[in-house]
Amino acid sequence: MGNKTNYCDKCIDLIVSRGVSLDEICDCVMLLQEKYNPGITRKTVDEVIMSVLNKREVQNAILTGICLDIAADKNVLESKDLTEILVNDNSLYGVDEVLAYGICNLYGSIALTNYGYIDRLKPLVIGRLNEDHNSQCNTFLDDIIGAIAAAAASKIAHSDDGDKV
Amino acid sequence: MGNKTNYCDKCIDLIVSRGVSLDEICDCVMLLQEKYNPGITRKTVDEVIMSVLNKREVQNAILTGICLDIAADKNVLESKDLTEILVNDNSLYGVDEVLAYGICNLYGSIALTNYGYIDRLKPLVIGRLNEDHNSQCNTFLDDIIGAIAAAAASKIAHSDDGDKV
Amino acid sequence: MGNKTNYCDKCIDLIVSRGVSLDEICDCVMLLQEKYNPGITRKTVDEVIMSVLNKREVQNAILTGICLDIAADKNVLESKDLTEILVNDNSLYGVDEVLAYGICNLYGSIALTNYGYIDRLKPLVIGRLNEDHNSQCNTFLDDIIGAIAAAAASKIAHSDDGDKV
Amino acid sequence: MGNKTNYCDKCIDLIVSRGVSLDEICDCVMLLQEKYNPGITRKTVDEVIMSVLNKREVQNAILTGICLDIAADKNVLESKDLTEILVNDNSLYGVDEVLAYGICNLYGSIALTNYGYIDRLKPLVIGRLNEDHNSQCNTFLDDIIGAIAAAAASKIAHSDDGDKV
Repeated sequence: MGNKTNYCDKCIDLIVSRGVSLDEICDCVMLLQEKYNPGITRKTVDEVIMSVLNKREVQNAILTGICLDIAADKNVLESKDLTEILVNDNSLYGVDEVLAYGICNLYGSIALTNYGYIDRLKPLVIGRLNEDHNSQCNTFLDDIIGAIAAAAASKIAHSDDGDKV
Repeated sequence: MGNKTNYCDKCIDLIVSRGVSLDEICDCVMLLQEKYNPGITRKTVDEVIMSVLNKREVQNAILTGICLDIAADKNVLESKDLTEILVNDNSLYGVDEVLAYGICNLYGSIALTNYGYIDRLKPLVIGRLNEDHNSQCNTFLDDIIGAIAAAAASKIAHSDDGDKV
Repeated sequence: MGNKTNYCDKCIDLIVSRGVSLDEICDCVMLLQEKYNPGITRKTVDEVIMSVLNKREVQNAILTGICLDIAADKNVLESKDLTEILVNDNSLYGVDEVLAYGICNLYGSIALTNYGYIDRLKPLVIGRLNEDHNSQCNTFLDDIIGAIAAAAASKIAHSDDGDKV
Repeated sequence: MGNKTNYCDKCIDLIVSRGVSLDEICDCVMLLQEKYNPGITRKTVDEVIMSVLNKREVQNAILTGICLDIAADKNVLESKDLTEILVNDNSLYGVDEVLAYGICNLYGSIALTNYGYIDRLKPLVIGRLNEDHNSQCNTFLDDIIGAIAAAAASKIAHSDDGDKV
């Protein structure tokens, strides 16, 4: 144990470089939890978000998804069809959601419904990313941010009941 | 081929016996699709719902989920803890969502986000079932109805584009 | 926090009452990990199995699956078709696997491939349960035991690298 | 309906360009099914494989996975950490399996256990790809080929019983 390479800081750098702050992820978690945890503090939510970002499988999904967005922007993908799909955020392309489920699944079924809800309603930063796809490709980014927020909200719901998810 | 036992009719009987009509499922699909397919007819939606109900894995989920609701009502489950969880629709019990995902997964990622959305907003029959758990246990029923509607809406979205899901 | 009802002991009682010991689950984990962790001790594996059994979503799946097996044995399910499917362990019934995935998903993708492997090869207790369905219904039990073992093996693989899954 | 762009031919070209033939996928399906369908012909299996390759969500997974392998080979990904993970086929990287599940899920629970089995045993072309990662990156390719074979085998198992999956 202990020989692990932790990509947490690099994932945060990558997220920030694409124009999303941890504060905006915190806003999404607060929105998802306000009905169930009106008294929760941003400090607690931030800690939970960090614990999500510390999981290796979450880091792998972040690195992969954001690198695909950037590769589409740079037009370096082998398949021009895929580049076109990503740049246009084609509504029937679902690999972005598949990656998001890979994050949510680790946090149980509440994470998945939270994600589905946020993915359809597109509140806050999710909506901003979804609309703003002229300046950069956000096909994976919005789903990854939504999944991180959904996972954190699910962890809070479970830990509130004494469980460790 | 052809030696299959098809439980479609029995599933519909079971759903109706718990107080939900196919018309109410159609309402949910119309709601999920109205933004994307304003001109879709109830007849088309009904046909898609029937094709979903004809899938064996969907039938297995319906039979299992509704039988669990009924067994909780009849108090015939071995574990009284489980009975209590089901009768009270404990918010951290997620096996109902797991079964729903088993249906949605067959119809791709759009089905899953449709389901997450409907499961959180609880419109129409989903909301009625969720509130009305005094007369009978609806812990699995509301998720199963939501999953059938989400699957049908996803199938319409894909077939609209010429794909067979 | 802390008001949680923990069903861990009740789940173990239920598993043992159906004829499976924690030692047999440990054997499965050792088999899955022997290639990657030749020096791992049974004591360590036992601790990891207990941590898996302490997760609420795992407990919910155990309670639900085993209660379905018992309800089939007692013939108290509303649908006689479902009872027949469960008692005969119909090979196209997949809700048992769906529940197992609900456990494995919490432990990442390695858990899912471990489970698929053990579910097809049916070594040790999994094989015994699969063959012995005359005395009792084991339709859910074998998948649940396989999923617990697969989850524990995945957790060992990840924690070996310093990660907490 | 009918305005769909079908990427089936392009997916096959991409698979073949990475050194895998449809015949090798057929071999895997035959292996998975020989126990259950000893009399099945290669012609039938080929038709089922083509039907899998005609599904849009399958095509999206193929395009995305193989483009990631190629981008790692070309060293054009933004994150050098991700490139290193992909080139070395790091055993704790699980996004390749997550994409594979995205394919398998469409074909029900049998597809998932088939995939887990083939992913652990690594028979035939899967084993060859797994060993041969010096000449090119096969991190996604082996899982995608395994998932296509597992999906086709599951479809055969279900259709054998009269069901359309």
